[in-house]
Amino acid sequence: MEKVTNGIWKMSFGEPEPHTPVRYRSAPAKEEALLKLDCPGKPPFVEDEVSIRATPRGILIELPLDGDEHIYGFGLQLHAVDHTGRKKVIRVNSDPVADTGDSHAPVPFYVSTKGYGVLVDTNRYAAFYCGTNLRKGESEHKKQEKKAIGTSEIELYGYQVSEGNRTVSVDIPSAQGIEVYFFEGPGLLEAVQRYNLFSGGGALPPMWGLGMWYRAYSAAKKEDVMRLARTFREDGMPVDVFGFEPGWQTKAYSCSFVWDEGRFPDHEAMLQELYGMDYRVNLWEHLFVHPSSPMYESLKPHSGDYEVWEGLVPDLSVEEASAIFARHHKEAFVDKGIAGFKLDECDSSDYVHSNWSFPDIAAFPSGMDGEQMHNQLGTLYQQTILAPYEEAGKRTLSQVRASGAMAAPMPFVLYSDLYNHKVFIRGVVNCGFSGLLWSPEVRQAESPEDLVRRIQTAVFSPMALLNCWRIPNPPWMQVDRDKNVAGEFLPNYEEIRDLCRTLFQVRMSLIPYLYTAYARYSEEGLPPFRALVMDYPEDPRTYGIDDAYMMGDSLLVAPVITGTTERQVYLPEGVWHCFWTRRTYEGGQTYTLAPGLEQIPVFVKDGTLLPLAKPLPFVGDDAMFQVELHAFGTGARECILYEDDGISYAYREGRHNWLKVEVDQENRVHVDRTGDFTGCRYQFSDAGNQQPAQE
Amino acid sequence: MEKVTNGIWKMSFGEPEPHTPVRYRSAPAKEEALLKLDCPGKPPFVEDEVSIRATPRGILIELPLDGDEHIYGFGLQLHAVDHTGRKKVIRVNSDPVADTGDSHAPVPFYVSTKGYGVLVDTNRYAAFYCGTNLRKGESEHKKQEKKAIGTSEIELYGYQVSEGNRTVSVDIPSAQGIEVYFFEGPGLLEAVQRYNLFSGGGALPPMWGLGMWYRAYSAAKKEDVMRLARTFREDGMPVDVFGFEPGWQTKAYSCSFVWDEGRFPDHEAMLQELYGMDYRVNLWEHLFVHPSSPMYESLKPHSGDYEVWEGLVPDLSVEEASAIFARHHKEAFVDKGIAGFKLDECDSSDYVHSNWSFPDIAAFPSGMDGEQMHNQLGTLYQQTILAPYEEAGKRTLSQVRASGAMAAPMPFVLYSDLYNHKVFIRGVVNCGFSGLLWSPEVRQAESPEDLVRRIQTAVFSPMALLNCWRIPNPPWMQVDRDKNVAGEFLPNYEEIRDLCRTLFQVRMSLIPYLYTAYARYSEEGLPPFRALVMDYPEDPRTYGIDDAYMMGDSLLVAPVITGTTERQVYLPEGVWHCFWTRRTYEGGQTYTLAPGLEQIPVFVKDGTLLPLAKPLPFVGDDAMFQVELHAFGTGARECILYEDDGISYAYREGRHNWLKVEVDQENRVHVDRTGDFTGCRYQFSDAGNQQPAQE
Repeated sequence: MEKVTNGIWKMSFGEPEPHTPVRYRSAPAKEEALLKLDCPGKPPFVEDEVSIRATPRGILIELPLDGDEHIYGFGLQLHAVDHTGRKKVIRVNSDPVADTGDSHAPVPFYVSTKGYGVLVDTNRYAAFYCGTNLRKGESEHKKQEKKAIGTSEIELYGYQVSEGNRTVSVDIPSAQGIEVYFFEGPGLLEAVQRYNLFSGGGALPPMWGLGMWYRAYSAAKKEDVMRLARTFREDGMPVDVFGFEPGWQTKAYSCSFVWDEGRFPDHEAMLQELYGMDYRVNLWEHLFVHPSSPMYESLKPHSGDYEVWEGLVPDLSVEEASAIFARHHKEAFVDKGIAGFKLDECDSSDYVHSNWSFPDIAAFPSGMDGEQMHNQLGTLYQQTILAPYEEAGKRTLSQVRASGAMAAPMPFVLYSDLYNHKVFIRGVVNCGFSGLLWSPEVRQAESPEDLVRRIQTAVFSPMALLNCWRIPNPPWMQVDRDKNVAGEFLPNYEEIRDLCRTLFQVRMSLIPYLYTAYARYSEEGLPPFRALVMDYPEDPRTYGIDDAYMMGDSLLVAPVITGTTERQVYLPEGVWHCFWTRRTYEGGQTYTLAPGLEQIPVFVKDGTLLPLAKPLPFVGDDAMFQVELHAFGTGARECILYEDDGISYAYREGRHNWLKVEVDQENRVHVDRTGDFTGCRYQFSDAGNQQPAQE
Repeated sequence: MEKVTNGIWKMSFGEPEPHTPVRYRSAPAKEEALLKLDCPGKPPFVEDEVSIRATPRGILIELPLDGDEHIYGFGLQLHAVDHTGRKKVIRVNSDPVADTGDSHAPVPFYVSTKGYGVLVDTNRYAAFYCGTNLRKGESEHKKQEKKAIGTSEIELYGYQVSEGNRTVSVDIPSAQGIEVYFFEGPGLLEAVQRYNLFSGGGALPPMWGLGMWYRAYSAAKKEDVMRLARTFREDGMPVDVFGFEPGWQTKAYSCSFVWDEGRFPDHEAMLQELYGMDYRVNLWEHLFVHPSSPMYESLKPHSGDYEVWEGLVPDLSVEEASAIFARHHKEAFVDKGIAGFKLDECDSSDYVHSNWSFPDIAAFPSGMDGEQMHNQLGTLYQQTILAPYEEAGKRTLSQVRASGAMAAPMPFVLYSDLYNHKVFIRGVVNCGFSGLLWSPEVRQAESPEDLVRRIQTAVFSPMALLNCWRIPNPPWMQVDRDKNVAGEFLPNYEEIRDLCRTLFQVRMSLIPYLYTAYARYSEEGLPPFRALVMDYPEDPRTYGIDDAYMMGDSLLVAPVITGTTERQVYLPEGVWHCFWTRRTYEGGQTYTLAPGLEQIPVFVKDGTLLPLAKPLPFVGDDAMFQVELHAFGTGARECILYEDDGISYAYREGRHNWLKVEVDQENRVHVDRTGDFTGCRYQFSDAGNQQPAQE
């Protein structure tokens, strides 16, 4: 066991492969923050508890798993939260239809309720057997045990190994060697923080990225886009980011990366107009390069040996390729004020009706094969797109459909073409285990109720996104796609629009609280959204919860699915307060709630002084938030807030502040600012304390 | 290219693995029959058109694929028929939820409309890329091509490579060498026949196996079973095979292979009673051996290193293990008159809610790992169970949930826990490409209509099975499971029962025709059920058909799904006659049919003299069929029929007859028997010609 840094250990075996997540890490470990984290100072296993050996298949790793231990992680897993007793294959894929491990962002990293994490540093399709089977003979003592005869699949197949000598076995194909990293606790949460800090710390989005997002109709023309943009402002619908779908390019599937002057004549003037209305513009793309693209010729020698959708697959691990890609994006888009991108189709296609992506047998100039490239491509693509923003000194928050290990510092949020609401909620619960961000985006809906329920989840998620690429008019005007296209609107659409506006405003009021949570993600590796088991690892009743999650330290969110008037919510030990009614609930028990359509169940932890801002219509570069402090429970007199310029990387040089906000007995607000940011983002209702503290 | 035998060629590379389908083949190739098949006499490719090389991943094979070529096969594929442009991974699995190649019986064998077949002899999870991608640069000429902007997933992802320089690339993990077999045409059908004859020829079931099958409630006790058995006979419902589900054993999941005297006191008397009513008894089991089984101790040293459901996984490729398994089955069951088994759970479990099967990393005494064992286990299990029947000189028709390459001689029919009716029909279409038999079994139904539609498909399928393991009473009494369990019956159940009886009787009347088709499967490798493209490879309109199939040479079956009153049917060139109404249809076009609930669309090829028997209630050992000859079209004056004792292997020594049946101008029947079977199975309505012809 080699010590890597404070609280992180490594075991090496054989000849590790040259193309692994850690080798392609975008940022160094945050050593200072790692030193600050409380740390037992010894690896979770002694070396001879872990077996690593070569097999004809590749490499086999075997790690201990106690009978009462539960494990989580493996990246964005949409079909399960607790992976104990399951096999998970780390293979990036779109439309992961079953609980196989396939996902837009699988990660060969897991954490245990015993308080440690394990990262297997590979891009191979590694299979993790998480205590699925016992060894031969271990059940011999069960000769006499009586069992009833099953008459349903679940009775017959529901069996789980839950006792005896279990292991986590990792089957890594093709590899000749491997490096395994171990992350200390003491708790599950600290192990995740360590993993995030080892990855370079969490992403800090620009402040505007936490507002509302709207993506327009794929076939929209300039006039359609502008009509929508004006309507949102006229209707007072808060929207910060306006997204263009494939139609903006001359060629899509594959991409030309060139504006279509047919649909968007004089697009620069259009962009100026949108900027003038304080919109941030986001452009859809994927990385497959159409023959008509200006990048085609120069990228050809640096591309893989197979085409996708008639386009090149650039090897973005090769410096020349990523430089060409980055330069075009800087000159054509970033320098023209484009605020971010939606990076589509960088996952893979084993589960869709045509196998559109490159094969696992593809060969790339770097020496990677298709299998390795599939699992590494998402983060390589994010790094390539991020480069011009770093160069321009502008932050971005963007979207991506594939990611993997070591992605915590990437300001990219995952999404999926799947659309089951339960699955989308599970994504929010799961993404926090592995340094990922996930957006339960709203597309069309089966009913106005479904629309509202989905928007409620989106508003309490890492990115509040409406992706209306299939409908020309806003979903609150018509949820049915065909009618929306035909321009037939709901009779009561104004009522639904008002309901949506209120929810958008709730999001806007949460920005200071949420931005502070993201700042802690960046500095401490603390995920802004996380499963309850991360905050309550001692409470087995939280182990299976896949439909509720923490948003920051203080809010417990339990979304409701359309068609149900009731849902059960388990509240952990302690006292909780309803975010809407302030009603108090005793923790350690499960409640049945029947929230009206206008409410999503949200609970505030007792003792929270919650900062809520007066909702802005958008977050301008110089946005100032009017913050009201809401005390939940007696003795809730203190909270922290983070502030900086919200758009640049100056915060990295210390030009940011941490605010200690206190409310005294006379309800006067005292703010103590520390940090080198000289500006001010927040004004507190008690006008006395809004200026930066004098150092 | 090494010539293996008439019309079959082989390419070898490196050090082939010791555990492959061909090496575990149960029977030698049928050389005589292969010599009889019309044969171009040259391999489909010259050696340098095929590339085989070692990669860090294993072995990579690349084969040519023309722009207009379509490929089929890969075993029991439930989600697609035409695999051109698709990736298929040959990995055995239960509940294959997507079109990935995973299946109960995947086979590394494909056939082409160009008239050849390719078998890659491996048990590895080989991935076949069937012209999925073009090579870099091949689309460069498409610079200027205009494309509309897609606004739906299908527009965006529907893309298929259909031109340019395509290949079939086969990625075989872990292997250090490989043998590839090539099967000549001239047609697609002959290539399949060659593959089946190379496998040892098709299976010939006992005649009773072609009757109706009924599997009883899993938790049924002796009295429940006997009540059902008596009711069928009283109600005149034809049933040949009576199936027992897990409840018959003292332990199930895993299995004891011992009768439970609690639920089935004096089971031998019960069996005698069932035999007395002319039932054949089939017993459910799987191969995982519970600690309480009498086989446990002796099998332990010959088992894999992991348990499944607390039971051993015997390595049936090891002679000692298969001998122990076979001996117990002979003494405890076959010698007691048990007619067959249902071999469950021998596939794998990547897509179900618990991973119950052994891991791919498991190690077996033979040297196979779990991956190889998963793909070989189905056929090993079938061979092990077949052995005692061969020893006893009795034929069986049994069920199995996993199979693979070289399985044509196995008298086992596949089934699935999936239940989509369309998917089940597709299974019938597909199984004929790869030497497999498939049963679109009927379990419960969402409505009486659904029940009847499903039974119609089952009646025109390789095995006519009702699997009522979840309902204590027959489905025609109550389709709803809960009500069925509660004993609440449909008000009009007699009406539905009569409809079902009529369909069962149709099956019974088809037995002589069907038995003859199976005999040709055995002797000529000609699949009794097959896709239209196999009989009409020159007609591209048949290439995509996945909802209709040929049953023997003369019947085209086009099942109807519940909820639809109409369906489209394409009839190939030639004249066709409705099986029910005799109405004539001109081929080469598509018809819209609106059959009533009592009818499933079935068309008889013009010129067919169709032998239909007077339905028997069951097929006794000495069953005699009263055959009526139905002429479809003018000049339909001749047909062939096969006969033998129907139960033993004497037919292998030539004790079987081929009947040439002719109807003369005066409609008198002339029968010309050739063969050494001295008995007689068929009596023809024209009484003059029922005796065996005098040699």
